Amino acid sequence: MADRDPDCIFCKIVAGELPSLVVEEDERTVAFLDVNPATPGHTVVVPRVHTRDLLTIGAEDLAACAATAQRVAARATERLEASGINLLNNRGSHAWQTVFHFHLHVIPRFADDPLRLPWTPTPGDRDEIVANHARLTA
Amino acid sequence: MADRDPDCIFCKIVAGELPSLVVEEDERTVAFLDVNPATPGHTVVVPRVHTRDLLTIGAEDLAACAATAQRVAARATERLEASGINLLNNRGSHAWQTVFHFHLHVIPRFADDPLRLPWTPTPGDRDEIVANHARLTA
Repeated sequence: MADRDPDCIFCKIVAGELPSLVVEEDERTVAFLDVNPATPGHTVVVPRVHTRDLLTIGAEDLAACAATAQRVAARATERLEASGINLLNNRGSHAWQTVFHFHLHVIPRFADDPLRLPWTPTPGDRDEIVANHARLTA
Repeated sequence: MADRDPDCIFCKIVAGELPSLVVEEDERTVAFLDVNPATPGHTVVVPRVHTRDLLTIGAEDLAACAATAQRVAARATERLEASGINLLNNRGSHAWQTVFHFHLHVIPRFADDPLRLPWTPTPGDRDEIVANHARLTA
């Protein structure tokens, strides 16, 4: 299996061919801010290697994504003062998956946020996303 | 830190002191059907060792929970003919956590299901839960 899919936007982000605001990365994973955030600081964790979803991802990549998500969660709690976190993975279009490269959403939560799932993906305010990136990576 | 909390219902399930319908288990984890299912086959994966949430769980237990969730997801896809899966972790009451022992929800999805999150926890039909358990463990 090829490590990347030439048509996959997350593969392009991993390769640096599309811009993203990276929060964490390691040998197996990259975590970057979602451009359609459900809440401030909403981050997506992906394996570097292309794989469709939860049923196809390898054991080591799955464990690595979970570990990276935990680090992002701790950082959002500390730096963004999130009072809660949701981790969400969507496998299959009937489960709201829209990009078919495995990803784990890390969604910071706040006492007064109105989040319901699925959220309606809407471009976030660019200045706010950049400001949250600065806080997460300072 | 004690491995269990005497007041925790998930610790009691792990210890076999409260009944549950177990789908998968291994050295570190137990997966059992949720009694308030969001969808048919809704399963909860917990570490055997008590820990409050995503920010406190150890790396090996987190990886083990993710691996068990993946196995449950594959089984629900095959045995229940789920066309999608959501994995969900709720950390903190502002993120809908209600039992403070880390757990990962594995929520099978179907083409016509009406799931929105958060779901309103309501006791499921007992016969249907038992029937789904039989299909998942046959």
